[in-house]
Amino acid sequence: MQALAQRVAEAADLVTVALDELLPRAEGPESRLTEAMRYAALGPGKRLRTFFALETGRMFELSDRSVLRAACALECVQAYSLVHDDLPCMDDDDLRRGRPTVHRAYDQATAVLAGDALQTAAFEILAHPDTHADGAIRAELVSKLAQAIGAKGMAGGQMIDILGVREDLGGVARMQRLKTGALIACAFELPIVMARAKEAERHALLAFAHDLGLAYQIVDDLLDAQGDAARMGKAARKDAQKGKANFVTLLGVAAARERLQVLAKQTKSHLEPFGKRAEFLRASVDFVLERPS
Amino acid sequence: MQALAQRVAEAADLVTVALDELLPRAEGPESRLTEAMRYAALGPGKRLRTFFALETGRMFELSDRSVLRAACALECVQAYSLVHDDLPCMDDDDLRRGRPTVHRAYDQATAVLAGDALQTAAFEILAHPDTHADGAIRAELVSKLAQAIGAKGMAGGQMIDILGVREDLGGVARMQRLKTGALIACAFELPIVMARAKEAERHALLAFAHDLGLAYQIVDDLLDAQGDAARMGKAARKDAQKGKANFVTLLGVAAARERLQVLAKQTKSHLEPFGKRAEFLRASVDFVLERPS
Repeated sequence: MQALAQRVAEAADLVTVALDELLPRAEGPESRLTEAMRYAALGPGKRLRTFFALETGRMFELSDRSVLRAACALECVQAYSLVHDDLPCMDDDDLRRGRPTVHRAYDQATAVLAGDALQTAAFEILAHPDTHADGAIRAELVSKLAQAIGAKGMAGGQMIDILGVREDLGGVARMQRLKTGALIACAFELPIVMARAKEAERHALLAFAHDLGLAYQIVDDLLDAQGDAARMGKAARKDAQKGKANFVTLLGVAAARERLQVLAKQTKSHLEPFGKRAEFLRASVDFVLERPS
Repeated sequence: MQALAQRVAEAADLVTVALDELLPRAEGPESRLTEAMRYAALGPGKRLRTFFALETGRMFELSDRSVLRAACALECVQAYSLVHDDLPCMDDDDLRRGRPTVHRAYDQATAVLAGDALQTAAFEILAHPDTHADGAIRAELVSKLAQAIGAKGMAGGQMIDILGVREDLGGVARMQRLKTGALIACAFELPIVMARAKEAERHALLAFAHDLGLAYQIVDDLLDAQGDAARMGKAARKDAQKGKANFVTLLGVAAARERLQVLAKQTKSHLEPFGKRAEFLRASVDFVLERPS
């Protein structure tokens, strides 16, 4: 679907320009830190969270400009989490999207600090009056993001992933929901808050986000199993090597693919109430699923 | 001054109880993370930022209950920064306040994640409606904290400290202002925002915070030079060993002590407009200065 691929690429361009403006300049004796932040946040990326946020915002007729600030916060968090996850004491990765990871390009101390400061930048961006005229909405955006990425969200999921404490599908699913699902859901939730959307619309979109996040993880696990490091831009077969359970090690490739097809249908069904307004979100399900060819 | 010491101790008790309630429980497969967060944030500490915040709040007749939430956010940030600063790739410390550092008591990955999630917790606490009824105030609290601890605040200061890029007093002073001064100033700024204090009062209190932070750092550098690890509860003589400039290595012990005395007078002078309302803040200057005996 040509139109969709272009729309995703445009969203990525928009957020990269906005991030470039919002991130601190590399000046002063601390410039090594701000350079590393920019290296992490402005590098190549699909920026799917930005695409989801912009599309959701457009459904509710929010201005791209204000949703882009929320998207910048999401991308700062995504960059921070990757920088820290790649550290030698965590997943120990040298390569991320085909480039040296931040601790390789700089050093570990700089990587820790760059991740820290990117997290801070996300909250600073959300809380700024330019993000929304209503202070209560800004505070709620901060709350939603914090809930999604703290100990009962992304950070908790990464802890579970590192510990490898999961043996069944339920455990893998909970880990995925915390580690990656919560931030994906946030890409929908932030514009929903900004638009003061109705509760029914919120539920439908969050159900969509939930299933989409799950599908995304199964695709990731399939890519990892196929060992396609070139397509992934990072090391592959890591879960199997480390004896970690994931959707594919537990289900097998064929059953995982099958589940993905069922999930795709279910995911799209959540968008029915939105009709044509959700055209691009609907199409994005196939876009996400087409990654492993 | 018995009354003051008691008041500081009471503030520490209050914030420890409040933090214990606000921090996530150690439950579920991610409990190692929440345990480490609690180990870092609930351990012994002077909690001076809490004392400053509570005293400032009382000057403006804010309820202790709401200022305590701001204090909890400050203590979460303080704990996060210590956990990350202690990491082997940063200052590489085994001991903090007389106990094993988090990466020693747990491991490095857990320490990175615990610091990350403590930062998140700080913003989650500030943005919660219980902190202040007015959403715009809550968003401003988030903004002020983010500005104090990001790349142009605490994280930037830590980068400068690690790089050792400072050779003169100006460089050392800027590093101190970012690395520790900004968060100390926040202990005053958050209640100032909550109270919607007048601009003149804000300026006077932030000048007080600035000078107090400077005095605090000189005391720290004196303790480090005296090599009194037992009193400090952490390794001493680190700056001299690493050839890092600080106020004492640049000025010498005698001149640093002299400067401290001048600074003490100047610090107190900022409180003149507040009269007796600032009684305990005024007394706290001597309390801070009396640390090295």
